[in-house]
Amino acid sequence: MSDKAIYEKQGFGNRSGFGNSAALLMVDFVNGFNDPALFGGGNIGPAIQSTRTLLDFARKAGLPIVHTRVVYAEDGSDAGVFCLKAPGLKILTEDAAASQIVSELTPVPGEYVIRKTQPSAFFGTSLTPWLVGKGVDTLLVTGCTTSGCVRATVIDSMSSNFRTIVVTDCVGDRAMGPHEANLFDMGQKYADLLTSAQVMEHLERRSSSQALGKSRAT
Amino acid sequence: MSDKAIYEKQGFGNRSGFGNSAALLMVDFVNGFNDPALFGGGNIGPAIQSTRTLLDFARKAGLPIVHTRVVYAEDGSDAGVFCLKAPGLKILTEDAAASQIVSELTPVPGEYVIRKTQPSAFFGTSLTPWLVGKGVDTLLVTGCTTSGCVRATVIDSMSSNFRTIVVTDCVGDRAMGPHEANLFDMGQKYADLLTSAQVMEHLERRSSSQALGKSRAT
Amino acid sequence: MSDKAIYEKQGFGNRSGFGNSAALLMVDFVNGFNDPALFGGGNIGPAIQSTRTLLDFARKAGLPIVHTRVVYAEDGSDAGVFCLKAPGLKILTEDAAASQIVSELTPVPGEYVIRKTQPSAFFGTSLTPWLVGKGVDTLLVTGCTTSGCVRATVIDSMSSNFRTIVVTDCVGDRAMGPHEANLFDMGQKYADLLTSAQVMEHLERRSSSQALGKSRAT
Amino acid sequence: MSDKAIYEKQGFGNRSGFGNSAALLMVDFVNGFNDPALFGGGNIGPAIQSTRTLLDFARKAGLPIVHTRVVYAEDGSDAGVFCLKAPGLKILTEDAAASQIVSELTPVPGEYVIRKTQPSAFFGTSLTPWLVGKGVDTLLVTGCTTSGCVRATVIDSMSSNFRTIVVTDCVGDRAMGPHEANLFDMGQKYADLLTSAQVMEHLERRSSSQALGKSRAT
Repeated sequence: MSDKAIYEKQGFGNRSGFGNSAALLMVDFVNGFNDPALFGGGNIGPAIQSTRTLLDFARKAGLPIVHTRVVYAEDGSDAGVFCLKAPGLKILTEDAAASQIVSELTPVPGEYVIRKTQPSAFFGTSLTPWLVGKGVDTLLVTGCTTSGCVRATVIDSMSSNFRTIVVTDCVGDRAMGPHEANLFDMGQKYADLLTSAQVMEHLERRSSSQALGKSRAT
Repeated sequence: MSDKAIYEKQGFGNRSGFGNSAALLMVDFVNGFNDPALFGGGNIGPAIQSTRTLLDFARKAGLPIVHTRVVYAEDGSDAGVFCLKAPGLKILTEDAAASQIVSELTPVPGEYVIRKTQPSAFFGTSLTPWLVGKGVDTLLVTGCTTSGCVRATVIDSMSSNFRTIVVTDCVGDRAMGPHEANLFDMGQKYADLLTSAQVMEHLERRSSSQALGKSRAT
Repeated sequence: MSDKAIYEKQGFGNRSGFGNSAALLMVDFVNGFNDPALFGGGNIGPAIQSTRTLLDFARKAGLPIVHTRVVYAEDGSDAGVFCLKAPGLKILTEDAAASQIVSELTPVPGEYVIRKTQPSAFFGTSLTPWLVGKGVDTLLVTGCTTSGCVRATVIDSMSSNFRTIVVTDCVGDRAMGPHEANLFDMGQKYADLLTSAQVMEHLERRSSSQALGKSRAT
Repeated sequence: MSDKAIYEKQGFGNRSGFGNSAALLMVDFVNGFNDPALFGGGNIGPAIQSTRTLLDFARKAGLPIVHTRVVYAEDGSDAGVFCLKAPGLKILTEDAAASQIVSELTPVPGEYVIRKTQPSAFFGTSLTPWLVGKGVDTLLVTGCTTSGCVRATVIDSMSSNFRTIVVTDCVGDRAMGPHEANLFDMGQKYADLLTSAQVMEHLERRSSSQALGKSRAT
């Protein structure tokens, strides 16, 4: 029996769907993860391009928008076990070029920029309170890497009871094996897998029907 | 370039090693995850057998010991997004046979039993405070499934700055593709991968040298 | 200058107000905290009576409802520093009479019952995810004691970005000094202080105006 | 019966004591909380002076040292309910003079500086993982205000199973009523209350006896 068939037989892989209010999260789209000589490569570049389109859409639609960066202290005082496994991460300090968000996705005022030291965008941060404050119930997850910070973030997003969408063309990884394996795991257990086109189509349809509802109510 | 070579070139895959004080964690070794008709199958059975040996060792060595179970309320009041993706989980209630720890690993008094509703043993639980209270700095992770609750737990363990060891013959999954893919991810970024024999050898060597140190000091 | 004048001059004590969707939380209204021979006394009894009225209202209004209990394991395996400061807490085990919710407020199916070992209803629990799943943005806090688990819960509620209302006649304490002092602190910095009558009036007015809105829209 | 007598009769107010490894935490000793025209006043100035002595001691003794600052984003993107209750907090941005640590306690390299937006130094931060990484089991809490960020931090410290010491001459508040009331609550339920002299005496005695133990062992 195939892996997929086993999951299907055991009742995994259902859709959790959209709620009523979505936010867009971009995980670690910083220069260092877009540079194959540092932590990048694979399909991360194309993921950034696709996310640019989705970000434009989200800005026009007025969605709450969050960016994350990995940022360690200059003196290494906050480096922990993660930096034992991957010591190179310590170069990602506040002012390092490698830790700046890529130019295609530069934040604008009002967008929330989270500094983090661990894989998940939720761990040791105020992401959940921020989403609570915005009345968000659905998280659109983009970023890199699929098998690293995206996967960790998606688990916490689902565990926090946000309906979670992995935007498949807007997540990327340095290596394709882990990218595909993690999409499989997330789709089976934690999140719905949709393309950016599907996400935008859903949100537009919803927005039109809400506008229609409002116009009818007037 | 192979996936592994990419990770090596970018500086991942280093060892985080052992600290001074380890605890043993068994994730979700309950009947329902040992039953191929429910959520089990694959190499979960053999993982339980290997863990039995490690548990005996840990009990003799006096290590702090933690078990987790997935437990949902009878009335479904605490089911969330995870139960939308995998509705079958809701059968795992306090008294259901499927949610009892397998007989090979039945907890004894003093061992901490965590009830959880999400993948990670840390999420929404008191696992970190409990480990803090025991002075633990190293977590030996066993359980199932490798690609599910073990992976989620390992990310949080590392993020919480516990040196984390995945005991490779003591973790199992319903399907071998995800099992292998997740061992790769965890070994590269979050945890050291060791067999139970390697773990026991390390702890015994350490224990002998401590006893020696004490006897010399007398 | 009076304490209150200092806070006013420095800009504290503003109202955070109601959001759009409130839940009712009852903190530790269990027999042991209603018994002056154990952990009760003071104005806890009257607070329970007032909460009974508010609970009836909340049930009719369809608000999400949460109860908390302090529950420690029979074998003491999860007792920590809190039980060093107050060893008596350890009698509050799953089946102990002292840890059962008072008869006036017995939960009904669908109401979420949280077991906790620490003061805050949020600490090491799934309260935030549960509230996220219900789309809650406002938390009505009742329970005991004002200076203990209520205060701790209110700090976390506000920190989690829920608009927080302490229902003043529905919180109680074993001693009146700490009760009053903590109401002052919470009102200045974390929560609005309203009586149950004020809360019910607000929710009814809101409900009427929403019903009106809907009828106009039809 | 006095408030204190009630607590004594019910078994509160025991000592939790010291563990084996202490860290020093200074909560929000920044210019804005040392300025009566902003959020300061009361006994905060003397608390800073006493903390200076304790900090010198801790540096010599090699204790892990943590500072916290309240820091909000320039664009207000991370302001939440706390800023509804106390809008003035929003002036505390990364570069504002009011949010810089007071000159007496300027951090040196290797000391961990936490930026936070909520009362507790633990909420939405990596303080617990950092303490885990340092093998800390005991937290010495200093800072301001006693009734605000110190109290919130102490609850979380105790809940996280760190033995918690409030250093009574090293915590301060803008108003004395809340200062005293919160010392009472914390001493009864969450933390031991010791002067800085008592803390230093304990740590010196401990250090001497360890040095003696080592010299005997040689």
